Amino acid sequence: MNRYEQLANILGGRIEQGLYPVGQRLPSVRMLSSEHGVSVSTVQQAYRVLEDRLLVEARPKSGYFVSASKPQAALPAVCRTPQRPVDISQWEPVLALINSRINPAVIVFGGGTPDISPASLKPLTRALARMAQRQDLSTLGYDSIDGSKILRDQIARLMIDSGSHMGAENLVITTGCHEALSIAIRSVCQVGDIVAVDSPSFHGAMQTLKGFGMKALEIPTDPVTGISLEALEMALEQWPIKAIQLTPNCNNPLGYNMPDDRKRALLRLAQAYDIAIIEDDVYGDLAYQYPRPRTITSFDDDGRVLLCSSFSKTLAPGLRIGWIAPGRYRDRAIHMKYIGTGATATLPQLAIADFIRQGDYLIHLRRMRYQYQQNLCLITDWVREYFPAGVRVSRPQGGFMLWVELDEKMDTQRLNRLLEPENIHIAMGSIFSASGKYRNCLRLNYAQLDSQIHKPAIKRMGELIHQLMANS
Amino acid sequence: MNRYEQLANILGGRIEQGLYPVGQRLPSVRMLSSEHGVSVSTVQQAYRVLEDRLLVEARPKSGYFVSASKPQAALPAVCRTPQRPVDISQWEPVLALINSRINPAVIVFGGGTPDISPASLKPLTRALARMAQRQDLSTLGYDSIDGSKILRDQIARLMIDSGSHMGAENLVITTGCHEALSIAIRSVCQVGDIVAVDSPSFHGAMQTLKGFGMKALEIPTDPVTGISLEALEMALEQWPIKAIQLTPNCNNPLGYNMPDDRKRALLRLAQAYDIAIIEDDVYGDLAYQYPRPRTITSFDDDGRVLLCSSFSKTLAPGLRIGWIAPGRYRDRAIHMKYIGTGATATLPQLAIADFIRQGDYLIHLRRMRYQYQQNLCLITDWVREYFPAGVRVSRPQGGFMLWVELDEKMDTQRLNRLLEPENIHIAMGSIFSASGKYRNCLRLNYAQLDSQIHKPAIKRMGELIHQLMANS
Repeated sequence: MNRYEQLANILGGRIEQGLYPVGQRLPSVRMLSSEHGVSVSTVQQAYRVLEDRLLVEARPKSGYFVSASKPQAALPAVCRTPQRPVDISQWEPVLALINSRINPAVIVFGGGTPDISPASLKPLTRALARMAQRQDLSTLGYDSIDGSKILRDQIARLMIDSGSHMGAENLVITTGCHEALSIAIRSVCQVGDIVAVDSPSFHGAMQTLKGFGMKALEIPTDPVTGISLEALEMALEQWPIKAIQLTPNCNNPLGYNMPDDRKRALLRLAQAYDIAIIEDDVYGDLAYQYPRPRTITSFDDDGRVLLCSSFSKTLAPGLRIGWIAPGRYRDRAIHMKYIGTGATATLPQLAIADFIRQGDYLIHLRRMRYQYQQNLCLITDWVREYFPAGVRVSRPQGGFMLWVELDEKMDTQRLNRLLEPENIHIAMGSIFSASGKYRNCLRLNYAQLDSQIHKPAIKRMGELIHQLMANS
Repeated sequence: MNRYEQLANILGGRIEQGLYPVGQRLPSVRMLSSEHGVSVSTVQQAYRVLEDRLLVEARPKSGYFVSASKPQAALPAVCRTPQRPVDISQWEPVLALINSRINPAVIVFGGGTPDISPASLKPLTRALARMAQRQDLSTLGYDSIDGSKILRDQIARLMIDSGSHMGAENLVITTGCHEALSIAIRSVCQVGDIVAVDSPSFHGAMQTLKGFGMKALEIPTDPVTGISLEALEMALEQWPIKAIQLTPNCNNPLGYNMPDDRKRALLRLAQAYDIAIIEDDVYGDLAYQYPRPRTITSFDDDGRVLLCSSFSKTLAPGLRIGWIAPGRYRDRAIHMKYIGTGATATLPQLAIADFIRQGDYLIHLRRMRYQYQQNLCLITDWVREYFPAGVRVSRPQGGFMLWVELDEKMDTQRLNRLLEPENIHIAMGSIFSASGKYRNCLRLNYAQLDSQIHKPAIKRMGELIHQLMANS
């Protein structure tokens, strides 16, 4: 595919996903040229393709506008949640999901792995090999408790794109975002404490709450604007909530970016009730928009936000390198880091720092954003083609996860049982709820799509859903 | 140094450390030849050197016997401990110890790092480099939650030497022994629970108890036979203890190997009171005796022992690869693993598995045991030469840590303050006690000794101790 065709697909995808509504002026040729690192004429060619597809119309001296779009699938509904803190369930299905990671015969739509095959990761594996054989053996000793300064410097630099201006001394390197979340939770909460979470919410973070003995209070969450501030405020009035845990950018599983004004309003709420915010930004660098959305952390002026992230989604999960910016909770976070893993592995930190410094991280990110956006169009089309009419799908603004809501009579646990012998794996909606809601939903990972493999799998999924619907 | 001189030093060291008391028959030439992988004539030459040193006498047709030894330094005293559970203190000095890891100008006697410079580690760094560039990218994806089977198989094989016969399915790979301990503690205890610990005890494990809100009950511990079973039984009678946490082999900091009959008796106590044992074996493979001592785990027949270990002391801490054999607590341990770090980094697991499979691990171990045993003789001599008369020192049977007990009026915190401007770093005794005991003790790491650097440093330390004594 040519560069201009790729770009046309991306812009077309954005229009179809509703990022640019009908009648809106589209980004200028010059802006797109800078965003995507392509020539002005490539952008012009891309716009011509979109004109041919009747998605875009050119208005003389004004630029390009969204002319029409095919009707979109309905968005998932905002769900009522239990209006009280609950003990978190769902460990068994989460464990089943984790165990599905490693069977190569299975078509895995359920997992959280990004595409780790692109050539743009090669400089990273070369850096790993080079660092491993360094004569000074610096990769074999204990690292400092907060991680290699050389990597923290690079991360601090990258964080400027999300609106944060902090120094390396504000960061602690962790063994993936899992350890960051684990540190964050233990830094601000005790056993029995109540934590408010977006709903649906990342199952790993909720299992962490469960493992440390906290209760979750699920807050209804809009598939476009994020956690309901109104519902959150009511909950804060009613319950002694200790922290809010959420993923405001490229949300997992819903894919939205929370608007900046709502991020600010959320922070004001946290200030008013004097509670902490645990912000998971692990997909943030994979936002399709340019520049990437800001973090809540970037608005934080009193250190109450604990930012958790990693390179597991942007680079590769097997490296197990993440970080936390623990704000005012740094001392406690360092203690939690020490008792959790002692220190972080040195070699991958040095290799990643080198990869970023050489500019290879941004090149890789650009490539992956292209790919994930293109794949989003593909999988959305397949789902709409093969799943029953009335299916609701999310409109991800980044990352590589699609949330699908089926008829409310559907139970994806039953679907999962039918899919197992077909070697197709999904993430059941219920694991994204502390109380086992979202039984009629599923999450599909579209990081790596092959039309020969994944399209027939979605088709088969659709057949089984039809079959279950007919029998119910 | 020739092979026979090295061997003579090792045997001489064992004799001086009291491993072979006066009059005892020494191992046969054939046995030593097999233990050390040297020829029979090398062993005979070594024995001749020891005869010249008047340490050994040959008796015709009977073999070699310990003829005499110079008077040994007294052993550290068994300490009275607070006879009640306490909240664990000492985080600040532990943090100071951790932060001393990374200043290359400092002569570090305080840290826990092994010697990572030997050529016998080269095959490991080569394996890391080779695996990093594998075309199948298997090192970049999420590993299974319990770690790479290929590594678990190798560890299970190695564990036969400690008397354990378990399969790979009984092991979970962790991010160092720290994560193993963290998982173990959270698998058997709740906030507020009481855990009995050996005293002095590894500060990292105690800080883990502290971080998770448990209390420590320190049990008096003999510097040769380990934790007092009599005191432990009294404590079990009196307090609702949930678990015993200890390091029975190559104890950190005391260096003893608990005799097998006491390991069995400890297990019987745990069974009688139905509590768990958390066994830290991280130095076990570095025991100077051959074959290495058995673990408590190897006697366990009802899965109540959680064995924690890692390659941080035997290979290199920067790899962050450890393991836990969680026995009957496996389900809970898997949940704790998931919420702590999600998975363990893949690349170092595959490289270490390769290193073991090629036989390089055993070669490296043999080399390090030689070196650490030789260094033990050196540092013991230096301490006895330069420290005030009456100094008591441990007689380590493995590992690379010497425990030094000074006059009871001494405060090693004051010593530490004087050492800081001299760029010499020690581990103060107080961090090895939940209640801040052992203020007159210190721990010295002798993994890597250079007579030009470390001997003058010990000499200077001795001068400062004399000076403090004179002023007190």
